[in-house]
Amino acid sequence: MAKKQSKSNGLPIYIINGPNLNLLGAREPEIYGPATLGDIEKACAARARAHGLAIVFLQSNKEGEIVEFLQEARQMASGVILNAAGYTHTSVAILDALKMLAPPVIEVHLSNPLRRENFRHTSYVGMAATGTIAGFGAQSYLLAIDAVAAILKGETI
Amino acid sequence: MAKKQSKSNGLPIYIINGPNLNLLGAREPEIYGPATLGDIEKACAARARAHGLAIVFLQSNKEGEIVEFLQEARQMASGVILNAAGYTHTSVAILDALKMLAPPVIEVHLSNPLRRENFRHTSYVGMAATGTIAGFGAQSYLLAIDAVAAILKGETI
Amino acid sequence: MAKKQSKSNGLPIYIINGPNLNLLGAREPEIYGPATLGDIEKACAARARAHGLAIVFLQSNKEGEIVEFLQEARQMASGVILNAAGYTHTSVAILDALKMLAPPVIEVHLSNPLRRENFRHTSYVGMAATGTIAGFGAQSYLLAIDAVAAILKGETI
Amino acid sequence: MAKKQSKSNGLPIYIINGPNLNLLGAREPEIYGPATLGDIEKACAARARAHGLAIVFLQSNKEGEIVEFLQEARQMASGVILNAAGYTHTSVAILDALKMLAPPVIEVHLSNPLRRENFRHTSYVGMAATGTIAGFGAQSYLLAIDAVAAILKGETI
Amino acid sequence: MAKKQSKSNGLPIYIINGPNLNLLGAREPEIYGPATLGDIEKACAARARAHGLAIVFLQSNKEGEIVEFLQEARQMASGVILNAAGYTHTSVAILDALKMLAPPVIEVHLSNPLRRENFRHTSYVGMAATGTIAGFGAQSYLLAIDAVAAILKGETI
Amino acid sequence: MAKKQSKSNGLPIYIINGPNLNLLGAREPEIYGPATLGDIEKACAARARAHGLAIVFLQSNKEGEIVEFLQEARQMASGVILNAAGYTHTSVAILDALKMLAPPVIEVHLSNPLRRENFRHTSYVGMAATGTIAGFGAQSYLLAIDAVAAILKGETI
Amino acid sequence: MAKKQSKSNGLPIYIINGPNLNLLGAREPEIYGPATLGDIEKACAARARAHGLAIVFLQSNKEGEIVEFLQEARQMASGVILNAAGYTHTSVAILDALKMLAPPVIEVHLSNPLRRENFRHTSYVGMAATGTIAGFGAQSYLLAIDAVAAILKGETI
Amino acid sequence: MAKKQSKSNGLPIYIINGPNLNLLGAREPEIYGPATLGDIEKACAARARAHGLAIVFLQSNKEGEIVEFLQEARQMASGVILNAAGYTHTSVAILDALKMLAPPVIEVHLSNPLRRENFRHTSYVGMAATGTIAGFGAQSYLLAIDAVAAILKGETI
Amino acid sequence: MAKKQSKSNGLPIYIINGPNLNLLGAREPEIYGPATLGDIEKACAARARAHGLAIVFLQSNKEGEIVEFLQEARQMASGVILNAAGYTHTSVAILDALKMLAPPVIEVHLSNPLRRENFRHTSYVGMAATGTIAGFGAQSYLLAIDAVAAILKGETI
Amino acid sequence: MAKKQSKSNGLPIYIINGPNLNLLGAREPEIYGPATLGDIEKACAARARAHGLAIVFLQSNKEGEIVEFLQEARQMASGVILNAAGYTHTSVAILDALKMLAPPVIEVHLSNPLRRENFRHTSYVGMAATGTIAGFGAQSYLLAIDAVAAILKGETI
Amino acid sequence: MAKKQSKSNGLPIYIINGPNLNLLGAREPEIYGPATLGDIEKACAARARAHGLAIVFLQSNKEGEIVEFLQEARQMASGVILNAAGYTHTSVAILDALKMLAPPVIEVHLSNPLRRENFRHTSYVGMAATGTIAGFGAQSYLLAIDAVAAILKGETI
Amino acid sequence: MAKKQSKSNGLPIYIINGPNLNLLGAREPEIYGPATLGDIEKACAARARAHGLAIVFLQSNKEGEIVEFLQEARQMASGVILNAAGYTHTSVAILDALKMLAPPVIEVHLSNPLRRENFRHTSYVGMAATGTIAGFGAQSYLLAIDAVAAILKGETI
Repeated sequence: MAKKQSKSNGLPIYIINGPNLNLLGAREPEIYGPATLGDIEKACAARARAHGLAIVFLQSNKEGEIVEFLQEARQMASGVILNAAGYTHTSVAILDALKMLAPPVIEVHLSNPLRRENFRHTSYVGMAATGTIAGFGAQSYLLAIDAVAAILKGETI
Repeated sequence: MAKKQSKSNGLPIYIINGPNLNLLGAREPEIYGPATLGDIEKACAARARAHGLAIVFLQSNKEGEIVEFLQEARQMASGVILNAAGYTHTSVAILDALKMLAPPVIEVHLSNPLRRENFRHTSYVGMAATGTIAGFGAQSYLLAIDAVAAILKGETI
Repeated sequence: MAKKQSKSNGLPIYIINGPNLNLLGAREPEIYGPATLGDIEKACAARARAHGLAIVFLQSNKEGEIVEFLQEARQMASGVILNAAGYTHTSVAILDALKMLAPPVIEVHLSNPLRRENFRHTSYVGMAATGTIAGFGAQSYLLAIDAVAAILKGETI
Repeated sequence: MAKKQSKSNGLPIYIINGPNLNLLGAREPEIYGPATLGDIEKACAARARAHGLAIVFLQSNKEGEIVEFLQEARQMASGVILNAAGYTHTSVAILDALKMLAPPVIEVHLSNPLRRENFRHTSYVGMAATGTIAGFGAQSYLLAIDAVAAILKGETI
Repeated sequence: MAKKQSKSNGLPIYIINGPNLNLLGAREPEIYGPATLGDIEKACAARARAHGLAIVFLQSNKEGEIVEFLQEARQMASGVILNAAGYTHTSVAILDALKMLAPPVIEVHLSNPLRRENFRHTSYVGMAATGTIAGFGAQSYLLAIDAVAAILKGETI
Repeated sequence: MAKKQSKSNGLPIYIINGPNLNLLGAREPEIYGPATLGDIEKACAARARAHGLAIVFLQSNKEGEIVEFLQEARQMASGVILNAAGYTHTSVAILDALKMLAPPVIEVHLSNPLRRENFRHTSYVGMAATGTIAGFGAQSYLLAIDAVAAILKGETI
Repeated sequence: MAKKQSKSNGLPIYIINGPNLNLLGAREPEIYGPATLGDIEKACAARARAHGLAIVFLQSNKEGEIVEFLQEARQMASGVILNAAGYTHTSVAILDALKMLAPPVIEVHLSNPLRRENFRHTSYVGMAATGTIAGFGAQSYLLAIDAVAAILKGETI
Repeated sequence: MAKKQSKSNGLPIYIINGPNLNLLGAREPEIYGPATLGDIEKACAARARAHGLAIVFLQSNKEGEIVEFLQEARQMASGVILNAAGYTHTSVAILDALKMLAPPVIEVHLSNPLRRENFRHTSYVGMAATGTIAGFGAQSYLLAIDAVAAILKGETI
Repeated sequence: MAKKQSKSNGLPIYIINGPNLNLLGAREPEIYGPATLGDIEKACAARARAHGLAIVFLQSNKEGEIVEFLQEARQMASGVILNAAGYTHTSVAILDALKMLAPPVIEVHLSNPLRRENFRHTSYVGMAATGTIAGFGAQSYLLAIDAVAAILKGETI
Repeated sequence: MAKKQSKSNGLPIYIINGPNLNLLGAREPEIYGPATLGDIEKACAARARAHGLAIVFLQSNKEGEIVEFLQEARQMASGVILNAAGYTHTSVAILDALKMLAPPVIEVHLSNPLRRENFRHTSYVGMAATGTIAGFGAQSYLLAIDAVAAILKGETI
Repeated sequence: MAKKQSKSNGLPIYIINGPNLNLLGAREPEIYGPATLGDIEKACAARARAHGLAIVFLQSNKEGEIVEFLQEARQMASGVILNAAGYTHTSVAILDALKMLAPPVIEVHLSNPLRRENFRHTSYVGMAATGTIAGFGAQSYLLAIDAVAAILKGETI
Repeated sequence: MAKKQSKSNGLPIYIINGPNLNLLGAREPEIYGPATLGDIEKACAARARAHGLAIVFLQSNKEGEIVEFLQEARQMASGVILNAAGYTHTSVAILDALKMLAPPVIEVHLSNPLRRENFRHTSYVGMAATGTIAGFGAQSYLLAIDAVAAILKGETI
């Protein structure tokens, strides 16, 4: 999936999606709803725009590419939102890439991993994330954008 | 802590806080900021009001009282936001109370439990929660209110 | 829930119910049937009366109150029937209270914990109970009363 | 041990006993009392008769024979009471046989396994049993007969 | 149990006792000796007085109340001596309350937990305590008072 | 390190120190304070003298020598105070030597092992000790002497 | 079940079935289909015949008999197909019997054990089997016959 | 390795090979035989043709590419045969891709993983596969083609 | 295998052999030597005779039969020598039968289980045996006879 | 990163670097020093040249590419030096590629994994490496070149 | 304890005793009997003499000395009998010394470790021993001498 | 083994060897080569001399002596090279001694522990070492000397 640069001023938020998320909407729509990853991207761009922010929206099925998206984000992003999907639970390489990032990192999930198989209860992403938002379907992304915006504005409460 | 009913139309959101959260602001302000639990309550009420929602904001240091707040919420709440603090990791009684709830339940934490001691990586609350928002300090609560509002409005994205 | 002393001669059987059992009947009636805890109490009183025994029927959502019910039972009860619900699997305090009891203790459960989640396969109650009766719904209580009666009468077979 | 068909109307309850139970009474009488397995059989037959039920009372030291007793019970029994003794903790074959049974299955034990060695805290039988009655000596059997009778009569409380 | 303020100058030592300790003396006197908790309180008051210190001596069977005693101690105590009994091994809520305390915390036990069941080998209290004194019966308390006094006086050796 | 017999009447207390304790004072003085093992010995001798007791103060870096100190203590000591340092967590040989001792054994530690690495949470010494005193720096020794004295005098409270 | 010798030239394939497989077809036909073990035997005989091979088709509910079938197969079989059912996960005795076999051993299962309970993820049979075929219902047997035939003919690809 | 479309009618079987399988034949020929992956492809094509089926034969050393082969198979394949090699034991991403597939999935292995190191006893592939065929060298593939053909034809036995 | 009663005066030693030991000599003679179980029986009888003792030498591949041999030994044997082979590591039923035995029980093994697979490092037999002799091939039996003889004669050293 | 062939005679040493190492120097320079991966490559080339050896210096963030570098090294390298970074602890695919290599393999790490998180204490690379050099920063590479050179020259000591 | 060379022809058997065994007879005589280690030595010497063998009988409380006794035994002993006592369960150094020995090694224990605490169920000694004899008190040594003698004479049965 | 002071200027490197390394060369020469520990010492002295450094070369089979060598090294050594052999995996005492050292510590091993038994995968030495060099036979020592020299010279790359 090619990078799609949203228009924005200042550094954009990188929203990075892991394996199999490109099939969203096609896969088990009765569970996840009919929204595709493209729909989520559009909703994210709109929500970011409301905060005066731009996004870069990326997806890859490859662990190494996600590492490289994160490396790029080191200097190009004001914040990172990461749904690492299956790599969440297995990738020390992604954890190491996250540890190098200065901007805030938000771990997101469509579903709540604690209600699924045991091997999904471990998260290497979470070990290096500012925070986690999980279980709200596509809304998880929008809440994460709000969270990044609040952090960038220095809002406490 | 007495229950404080915010003005609202329809059923309010129950926001339930577990042990030691009554000391917020007094405790390690360099970490958690100077906001007290009262400050968080005010900010939550305002955020809910913006969604046309009321809140009931509760705190207890006692596992059994939290169970009873949740029992009350079965018929009195449109949604539940629960920061069970130390009981998150040890209370099957709270899990069982959550399983009886029809309204959405959001687990919140000020800090990210995955970056703390191992015994905080287990969450009985998460096993029965719709979703989790953790690591954003007091903002975790405001994001949770937004999440409940989105669920109540049936927003998908 | 206030203590309700049934009429009886000699010391009564204490029947102690743990967290969330006060909602019985309201909760998942398709699973547990429409009987409320009040219905169970009535049935227990009748069954005990048939053995010439009285009951004290108690419920609390609080671990510490259950500890205190058990302390009271030390001198006031001829036998104890305990459904500690969620505390069954987590409470060393209840175990310690049970160890101080001379009268027989029967652990009861409505459902069979071995057919539920792994964390329900451990029982601190069982470590100090004379015996266990689990899986028969409200009948578990009536069988437990029969078991206490048989022990008090010194019946072997 | 040959099968001993009690007189009964309708399908009988199968009461199946596992390894070493044939020595009951001879073994550690100071713990288990002087009752032999024959004594228990007689008491069970009498208790069942009081419910208008017959029993088939069986014992085997062989895992495979217990499997076959259970297979036979599929079509010949109204209920099964199983004390699998040492096989309780090790036999997947018995678990699989139990899973094929439609009638209710009651797991019984003379003593309370939770108060014995750790390897007795696991029960393959319990994973497929309606309920468990343990710790009441020979009374465990009589309570189990009452439990089956209550289930067959559709008693709730 | 009502709080009993001993006379003292400066801030007193809080001595906090967990579940079932109110029955001391009545319970297994052949093991723990005939001393009641009241006897221990008197001996503690005397020992503290010899150091020019006062005590506040508290007991509760409830986890949440112990949390609140510890919260009160934050500003009212010069030191804390805590025998959390059964909650020692299970309460993250108490651990979190302890982490907020500036004064020294001494974990005490009447018996030596390492010589008892495995689940008593874990101590959440110990993770936040200055030190531990265990195994000396009621003397554990007196030694703990001496330890607090030595810390308050800044004695090294 | 040669044995240094303090003057005393009756059998002395053996105070036995394990590996690396000979470097005390030289090692991380900002943590453990400037006191050397010699300073501790002097303070112990004085404290014991106040109880009318003598001490034998020993140190060895060798597991086998500590075993032999303990063997000698079987007939020569009225009590044993043991800081086995690194061997605390690994030596079954020391445990076996302790099991042969009739006099009381007090396990001491300068720091609180529960606040250090996981492998320090196991104590073979504790499995055979009367009690444990840990976390008070050099004061742990003096408290242990008081504990031995109280046991020898038969003080309860 | 008596041994049924199929007509064949050369040594036959032993097809050995473990506990509860005698009830196939009767048990959960909606899952396993209506085929009985007799049907499978017929299909196996036909498939073997197509390869010019005979079969001996055996079933037992008894671990020891399966051991003895395997001992017999040492000299009487050109290959062994073993569905040890519940004994697959618990029988070291069967593993030891398999280790003595020179002919190829194929482990078969009707369903895929990896999709069932955790205790079915271990296979003592697999530790001594040439290969495994699982999850294809009765077809697992026919594929296993093809596999044996290919091995006997020395087919590589 | 470029995709090689075999001629076929209807949708082909996707045969997907994981890391290091491209070196087959070159690697340890004394163990695996001299057949290369190309030889296996040819044999598979021939075997499929005998069933009137075509194949698409793929290999990749990259986890993400295997995920994408599986995504493509969702709409393009009548069945999937997957030898994920080293990723079998570590890839949640591949498991998630498999869960999205409607056609049957057969896990294959050249050797029997149960006879190798412990970390090869776990299979994420197996958790989502219809069945497994392992241990028959290159024949595992041919048996898997037969298995797919039987499933497609609806053969039971 | 039929029981073979050796001639003897007084009660004989029961020597009980578990699964697959009937094939001794035939199986891996380069490891275990050419001696058959019959050869061992003869050597045992001779060795026992030298002590003035008789033997009953038994073998079964069936767990339940071994249980029954042990039950018989309760009243018929002066000592028991048990090589339970594969059941050593899995049979709680045999452990329970052993617990009922008054005469001394010697666990024997031809090879040293500690040098084999991990699952052979557990021994239910050892939990109820007087002692163990393992690793000496057929000599293990002869040494065990000497051990029983020494116990019967009350030899200490 | 393109392959950079150093000039050399004979087969070169392959030096392969895993994920995130391309950011060396930019990342936490206060820990790892200001040297970039390019600086390390130059130093390695110089050190190799001193031994009369050439190097091929590679980096990839992708597990599959590292597998392919190793496959290429099978025939093109005299030795392999591998810093697999995050894949060290998770990649069975890399382990399998290493097992196919005849030339010596040296595992290198900049820091000492044993002093970091628990999940870094496992190394799949180490299971197939000749040796390991870890903890010396960039010097680890130079020592590894010396080690390869010594092996190639057949130096023992 | 000084080495005591028994008179013998050919190389002697080294009998090596670990920590605390020097106190035998003094320690818990009601369990171990009144025999001292000296008594055992005499009995061993006599038993060995009956086989025409001499012994060297050693004891040390120090792991390193036991290592050195074993090193000496490499060239000086025809066989080794080792009761490593507490080091049995903890000493890799002793295991490594045993691995260097050509003569047979017999592990002996006075009591049966499987009937004691869990940490005694592991044996590093057993991993390198020919065989084990445990549980017969001092007779374990005499049986071990017989076992060595039989091995030296090449007796099979 | 007596200490052998090499001639040197400045503080020497302490090279400390643990149990059984004194037998090097004699032990399994086909694996470790014919070099003795004396040969290694000579090679080390020569290699150090080339760096202008002296060595102190020590060996002990005793844990406590190794602790004392390390204590001596605190003030006498510029660096420490430690092959703790069997104590590597079991000695907290050595770990504690290492923690007190300011000079760099290099852990060395002749073979690669990751390719040996599981209990060799843990290293207490590694928890306090600057770095590790393992698997190169005697060359591990020479590389370690080079590593110390590079650290002392402050070489980065």
